[in-house]
Amino acid sequence: MAETRQWRLASRPTGEPTLDNFELVTVDRPEPGQGEVLVRTLYQSVDPYMRGRMRDAESYAEPWDVGDPMQAAIVGEVLESNHDRFDSGDVVTGDLLWAEHAVADGDELRPVDPDRGPVSTALGVLGMPGVTGYFGMLDVADPSPGDTVVVSAAAGAVGSVAGQLARLSGARVVGTAGSDDKIDWLTDDLGFDDAINYKEVDDLGQAMAEACPDGVDAYFDNVGGPITDAVWRLLNVDARVAVCGQISTYNATDVPTGPRKLAKLIETRAHVEGFLVGDYDDRWDVALDRLSTFIADDDLRYRHHVVDGFENAPDAFLGLFEGENIGKQLVQVAELDA
Amino acid sequence: MAETRQWRLASRPTGEPTLDNFELVTVDRPEPGQGEVLVRTLYQSVDPYMRGRMRDAESYAEPWDVGDPMQAAIVGEVLESNHDRFDSGDVVTGDLLWAEHAVADGDELRPVDPDRGPVSTALGVLGMPGVTGYFGMLDVADPSPGDTVVVSAAAGAVGSVAGQLARLSGARVVGTAGSDDKIDWLTDDLGFDDAINYKEVDDLGQAMAEACPDGVDAYFDNVGGPITDAVWRLLNVDARVAVCGQISTYNATDVPTGPRKLAKLIETRAHVEGFLVGDYDDRWDVALDRLSTFIADDDLRYRHHVVDGFENAPDAFLGLFEGENIGKQLVQVAELDA
Repeated sequence: MAETRQWRLASRPTGEPTLDNFELVTVDRPEPGQGEVLVRTLYQSVDPYMRGRMRDAESYAEPWDVGDPMQAAIVGEVLESNHDRFDSGDVVTGDLLWAEHAVADGDELRPVDPDRGPVSTALGVLGMPGVTGYFGMLDVADPSPGDTVVVSAAAGAVGSVAGQLARLSGARVVGTAGSDDKIDWLTDDLGFDDAINYKEVDDLGQAMAEACPDGVDAYFDNVGGPITDAVWRLLNVDARVAVCGQISTYNATDVPTGPRKLAKLIETRAHVEGFLVGDYDDRWDVALDRLSTFIADDDLRYRHHVVDGFENAPDAFLGLFEGENIGKQLVQVAELDA
Repeated sequence: MAETRQWRLASRPTGEPTLDNFELVTVDRPEPGQGEVLVRTLYQSVDPYMRGRMRDAESYAEPWDVGDPMQAAIVGEVLESNHDRFDSGDVVTGDLLWAEHAVADGDELRPVDPDRGPVSTALGVLGMPGVTGYFGMLDVADPSPGDTVVVSAAAGAVGSVAGQLARLSGARVVGTAGSDDKIDWLTDDLGFDDAINYKEVDDLGQAMAEACPDGVDAYFDNVGGPITDAVWRLLNVDARVAVCGQISTYNATDVPTGPRKLAKLIETRAHVEGFLVGDYDDRWDVALDRLSTFIADDDLRYRHHVVDGFENAPDAFLGLFEGENIGKQLVQVAELDA
């Protein structure tokens, strides 16, 4: 019988995850039942939110069980289909497993058109991260022409889309990122008006104030922590804060503390709102259509940081917390038509 | 020439204000110019937000200058009027001074009808605090029948109105307060479903969880600090947080710190919004009409904590931070028709 490999959760991390928390196992390749499809993984996504699923605590995503395979968004090729929407050779995307092969209910898969561009975009700019940036920026942060908009983790998969959409809305866009390469990409390629390398500045508050001389009208928050503290001090009246992620706190073992900031909301009558892309399922295709058009018009650019080889998936995940990726962090598991 | 007394800001407080920050001075009684009215103060309000005006920092209310008289909402009797809307003997309310007599632009005063109830209500349930509770609860916290709503500083002038309005909206209402007398008032007289004496409980988080077994759908936040931390942990999906005040932090000399809580907003997609009653000027009369009706129907109750004598105004203000008041904290400066 054919075999496949899976990454399983070996143990729950305390603080920063390590390779010891992951176990690579070889298992029999599953067979698709009625309505199911066997998929060969081409690309696997690793995302910051997965850190929450390694924890044994209720949150918006179910925790993984120790010893079980972990879930991931993947792009793959259909090897066998018992579902009338899909044939062998089709490229699909969906939430499957950290695995070289997996079986999925065909109703839970979306087709990917390889003629539309690299199929890996279905995990990035034309997938969950891009759609997250789209609704978080346009529905929650809601920039207007002339606004100053700050995006944290702006060189990541979500932030790079969010920031460019703010620019397309006519706002002045300021990003934060953690390397000079990322800063260059934001300002030189993506059209950010300014960008701050938070690892290099002496005084983050001062740097943010200098980058936002008219204050901040909208903030797309991917990171939390001191960057968020610096932005909140500059919020203008009626500012909007879209809380998308708080990666700076995900590996904390104690409850992280910081300045109490809520009084700022009274002065500014600011709105702070958390959001999840899952709440926008019914408008997902609208977002994909618009994002595709922006890409075709070269109004929206993206980058992928591809880690090669399924065996390196945990490294790719851990790299998210080191900020190694520019753009979407992906694992290439196999090649199409290989 | 007739004289009057004023309280002036003698110095800016560091941390908790003290009596040394106030200076009582005797000055010539001012004379009303064209369109102006001379008012004899009957009641003066003291409010937590005044702490911000003692500080030399921009906020939503202008800082007071050292050496200048301080502003306050008052109810008073017209002694002389050069404004065609007012005659001697009329009762009015407006933002005047910490003073026994003051002159105001008649356009800035509102008439108070003594037949409608105690004139002091114009500083409480039928004044800024009541209207604050009205819009903060009904527009921002927006309770629905069956919701669990928490109000902090629930026995204060704002919180007591906010909580009762939540109850009238069909919500289950839980309040926090700092004495057993206040707890009794909330549960026995105002119809709160539960109330927590935060000074007496061993574990605030546990007490809040027990009082809110179905989580928290809306939170009217007057205090910030650990009470707010306890409530945020219980926020439900789509919860609303109305940030009205943060009195627990107003006297802090260092930036107060606390647990970073923003990740909770992602999980819950909660909205957090600061508000100021000044943004509702055009709907003020609507609120007063509805609040008056609720009072007439005995659906809304209030209490005043009256400190007697103008010379005790600073003590009355300092008492706010000790939590001495049940209901609206007022200073009686003179008697009507005295």
